[in-house]
Amino acid sequence: MNFPTLSNIRAAHERIQPFIHRTPVLTSSAINEIAGCKIFFKCENFQKVGAFKARGAANAVLKLSPEQKSKGVATHSSGNHAAALARAASVAGIPSYIVMPSNAPEIKKKAVRGYGGEIVECEPTLQARETTLQEVVARTGATFIPPFDFWDVVEGQATCALELLEAQPDLDVVMAPVGGGGLLAGTALAVHNLNPKIEVIAGEPTGADDAFRSFQAGEILPNEKTQTIADGLLTTVGRLPFAVIQEHVDSILLATDPQIVDAMRILFERMKLVVEPSGAVPLAALLANIERFAGKRIGIIISGGNVDLGKLPF
Amino acid sequence: MNFPTLSNIRAAHERIQPFIHRTPVLTSSAINEIAGCKIFFKCENFQKVGAFKARGAANAVLKLSPEQKSKGVATHSSGNHAAALARAASVAGIPSYIVMPSNAPEIKKKAVRGYGGEIVECEPTLQARETTLQEVVARTGATFIPPFDFWDVVEGQATCALELLEAQPDLDVVMAPVGGGGLLAGTALAVHNLNPKIEVIAGEPTGADDAFRSFQAGEILPNEKTQTIADGLLTTVGRLPFAVIQEHVDSILLATDPQIVDAMRILFERMKLVVEPSGAVPLAALLANIERFAGKRIGIIISGGNVDLGKLPF
Repeated sequence: MNFPTLSNIRAAHERIQPFIHRTPVLTSSAINEIAGCKIFFKCENFQKVGAFKARGAANAVLKLSPEQKSKGVATHSSGNHAAALARAASVAGIPSYIVMPSNAPEIKKKAVRGYGGEIVECEPTLQARETTLQEVVARTGATFIPPFDFWDVVEGQATCALELLEAQPDLDVVMAPVGGGGLLAGTALAVHNLNPKIEVIAGEPTGADDAFRSFQAGEILPNEKTQTIADGLLTTVGRLPFAVIQEHVDSILLATDPQIVDAMRILFERMKLVVEPSGAVPLAALLANIERFAGKRIGIIISGGNVDLGKLPF
Repeated sequence: MNFPTLSNIRAAHERIQPFIHRTPVLTSSAINEIAGCKIFFKCENFQKVGAFKARGAANAVLKLSPEQKSKGVATHSSGNHAAALARAASVAGIPSYIVMPSNAPEIKKKAVRGYGGEIVECEPTLQARETTLQEVVARTGATFIPPFDFWDVVEGQATCALELLEAQPDLDVVMAPVGGGGLLAGTALAVHNLNPKIEVIAGEPTGADDAFRSFQAGEILPNEKTQTIADGLLTTVGRLPFAVIQEHVDSILLATDPQIVDAMRILFERMKLVVEPSGAVPLAALLANIERFAGKRIGIIISGGNVDLGKLPF
């Protein structure tokens, strides 16, 4: 399998740079003291649409041919990828069709509409989502942009670790959360190609531990049931990201929901960052395995900050 | 009256730089759209101790003579200045004595103790605070570092606008909140000396509008009663800051508590920033006077992020 190369990733970065934020890397001596190591937080909660997803979606849209562009893009998502794709399409001046389950939170629908995306509702089952998406693509001729199982998206997500290592090259470990695996695979590719001595470690919720189990087993073992506050990480890891993860990720560490809420609270209180539960998972996994990181220099990607303030877990 | 000069401010910046964060300047296209202007947020909520107060306290402590240092520093405060002074003293390796009212929030006391400050409790009246402070100073020989009515502190707070204008020189307006006036006076001095064409505008809560009234009257008119969620801005403006404000501030705009809460919510939701109510006051004042800022480039100092997550107003 041909993975994206460093020059693919650099080209993606150049392509999307005008349309994304170069997010800051922040530190906190209070958190370093708690964690017993030095942590550099790459704040993708400050990214456009409030999450790293803006990167992959922008890269995929900008790589389309003029003919593809004229017919727009489509996806199914109830999360950050939906808003990210609608925004990328809007920036490129092309239509977007977003298939969303009828029970998706109003705030997510509002974000998509705010970027001019057309929402197509469906029953809240995976099968209904896929069928509805096929209908939309057949009707409009739009190009399907998957949320993670797609190299153009992985390439885009990889630009985040590229910026992190430009800002802070001397790291021992880089951590990212894993859901579908787009961010983790991109991170692993960027880090491995820039400096193979840096370990790449994922954080995953125990309540959606498919990547952890798949990584041990050497084959994808889907989630049968998920139960976690980290609602951005419910999907089973994708085929392409998993191939990268098997090759370039050093380990996947789990965090329980109480650990995730604690990490989220630490990020709010000590770093004054609004972080969604999924974005706090790597710090939670680090704090749950504190001896493993003692004295090291860790880069952590805070993946997003889209949280409903009325439903904070504290 | 001799105000601190630009070279005083630059010297203060050099003095305190090793002990403070150069906080980032962040933007949000969503907020720019809401506000109809371009806003550059200087994020002092990311500052050490979670507020700009770290700057003034560090400058005041570092300017002490060796003999003064040996006896430590003292102040009365139940807010960010308490933690800032305790931390500055701890960094300098000297004792600090913080007079706090007995009803001060436990979280504030914990912060002071965490930096090794010695808390001296008193009755929750201004008179008890002053008497207790005098006793502490008499007993220990510590130097009193006032929270705002003191040039060394004003000089330190001025370094925040210095950094803002280094990062973003081409501004039309710089905004800061006003309580005791240390930050506003420092901001006005830095901005006026670097570029007198830039307007300096303060935001103040209607429920503690002494600076607004004093500015109109040309003399300090203390608050008789205060009633606002912006608990960092309850004090009456100090004599030294007021002299600077009269000369170099262009106007003071008011914001009601509902406007402050709205602005705070916008900063949480759109910028993913944890901001205390006082830190949201300038944005609230801007949004309450939106036509005045139309199309302009505004720097806003977000003064702090120390908010009790259990008591968020949304």
